[in-house]
Amino acid sequence: MPRIVRFHQTGPADVLKIEETEIPQPGPGEVVLKVDAIGLNRAEVMFRSGQYMYPPKFPSSLGYEAAGTIAAVGPDVTQWKVGQKASAVPSFSLQDYGTYGDYVVLPVYALESYPDNLSAEEATSIWMQYLTAMGIVEIGKLQSDQWIVITAAASSVGLAAIQIARSIGARAIATTRNRDKVEALKSAGAELVIDTKEQDLVAVVNEVTKGAGVPLVFDPIAGPGVEQLAQATSGNGMVMLYGALAMAPTPLPLFPVVGKHLTIRGYTLFEIVGNPERRKEAVKFVYDHLKNETLRPIIAKVFKLDDIVEAHRYMESSEQIGKIVVVP
Amino acid sequence: MPRIVRFHQTGPADVLKIEETEIPQPGPGEVVLKVDAIGLNRAEVMFRSGQYMYPPKFPSSLGYEAAGTIAAVGPDVTQWKVGQKASAVPSFSLQDYGTYGDYVVLPVYALESYPDNLSAEEATSIWMQYLTAMGIVEIGKLQSDQWIVITAAASSVGLAAIQIARSIGARAIATTRNRDKVEALKSAGAELVIDTKEQDLVAVVNEVTKGAGVPLVFDPIAGPGVEQLAQATSGNGMVMLYGALAMAPTPLPLFPVVGKHLTIRGYTLFEIVGNPERRKEAVKFVYDHLKNETLRPIIAKVFKLDDIVEAHRYMESSEQIGKIVVVP
Repeated sequence: MPRIVRFHQTGPADVLKIEETEIPQPGPGEVVLKVDAIGLNRAEVMFRSGQYMYPPKFPSSLGYEAAGTIAAVGPDVTQWKVGQKASAVPSFSLQDYGTYGDYVVLPVYALESYPDNLSAEEATSIWMQYLTAMGIVEIGKLQSDQWIVITAAASSVGLAAIQIARSIGARAIATTRNRDKVEALKSAGAELVIDTKEQDLVAVVNEVTKGAGVPLVFDPIAGPGVEQLAQATSGNGMVMLYGALAMAPTPLPLFPVVGKHLTIRGYTLFEIVGNPERRKEAVKFVYDHLKNETLRPIIAKVFKLDDIVEAHRYMESSEQIGKIVVVP
Repeated sequence: MPRIVRFHQTGPADVLKIEETEIPQPGPGEVVLKVDAIGLNRAEVMFRSGQYMYPPKFPSSLGYEAAGTIAAVGPDVTQWKVGQKASAVPSFSLQDYGTYGDYVVLPVYALESYPDNLSAEEATSIWMQYLTAMGIVEIGKLQSDQWIVITAAASSVGLAAIQIARSIGARAIATTRNRDKVEALKSAGAELVIDTKEQDLVAVVNEVTKGAGVPLVFDPIAGPGVEQLAQATSGNGMVMLYGALAMAPTPLPLFPVVGKHLTIRGYTLFEIVGNPERRKEAVKFVYDHLKNETLRPIIAKVFKLDDIVEAHRYMESSEQIGKIVVVP
């Protein structure tokens, strides 16, 4: 029997249950994907634990990303055929769809092809991270030769941002609290890595930029650290906030913000995937750069679907460098 | 003997002293203005009390605005002639120049002509308020028919923003904590006035905008109220912060900011006056609209120069509606 991961209450990783089910039927505008690999995301940990933007409806499925093969198409679906490979783009509500299972229903608008030089594990590790990171280009207007500070840089989105910055000729300063990740961040393309446990971010940025600061910061942490980020930002620069990992109040650093005319910009992937023009442009950029291997997803670890609880715990450990993938 | 206002230490209004002096000599790139009227600004209260972006150098002069007649020009100055009328644009450091006096030295770049349908009292009440308020057009990109929330709306900049919003066909929601100011704000052109002591800003804005919120907020207060402002802002909207009147920490409302992709934008007038293109455009807009009386400065009260301490105290009382002016 096909398996699906569901949970019946919010809580720690072990609320996730492997359940047996029938192969689902696609409705209008939907397909069934036979899953070859699932990409895990921090958002799913938050959804599971009741800390996401909206709550689960129980029993709840889970998951934004999967790569696989079309197993069935809905009555009106003409753009996809059974047997084609596709990868899910996070562009739906977790209340409506999920990807943790052997066979999952997905809306047609959430599917994209992927370049065939990618394995299934790699193909499920692209859309969330690269389309989110495309915000530095689409919203942050990062230009070649400009510096960007990328915090929590060993996360999949952080690594994707380093790669995208590098691909357009910009210069990434990556931050991590874990000295064991420094070398991996350099290999990933960061020109400079700041170990924020040992080094003063503002001082290092000022030294590197000769006191000017960086025009763009890309930060999923928020919390008290935004003060230093604002100090490290140059006049008329932007701090993009796309998460709340700190789980602590975020003081707005009013004096640098007003005095330097800074922009604090809230951002999520939905700004790109919810805008057809922008999505098309960003998907093409990512597809082309994956194909020519300028972009290359970094996979931290691969788990079996039966070990989904362990995979979620690993996500919460923050030990990983890159994407956590689950396979059937 | 000509008088000049100076202070020798930061502190309350009575640190300001009227001192006698010679008529000053202009250096290269400077003129001497015989002052007909001085416009007071909140920034000067902050500078006087040591709470501004930078500290005074003692003995310190004071003042960003004055209207008057050119009394002398520096050796290389060809664009102004003795006898011409001019009004000062706040575009210099208060550490270098001041306007509180009978004769003051100003840099040529700080002078603009003003339309001759204005009195001297009006002519010193235009550049700070209208050029600051032009941020809603230049930076905030306010469009006709759009709503804007303008806080501390009875301040000179608040009233200027109401008038500018109205002049481009936008719809101003003005806020005040003082019910006695409600009628004056309506007369100034606000389509709606919210008395924030009595009314719930978010509820009123939601009602008026049918739940959408406003695309732009123009706020000099900051502090805890930014939370409500973010809640009242529509998706992809902007909260412009151009002051710190609350004198209290400002929590960054992370969930609405990230979830609605909001922009929190620090802003000062210097972004307009420091950019030659933008300054030219904004000055022309203001000049033309003053000339055709679409814009009209509102003067709260006129003091004598000898009563400068009292004038500063009145500014700090926050009782005024509009500009406080001082004349010789």
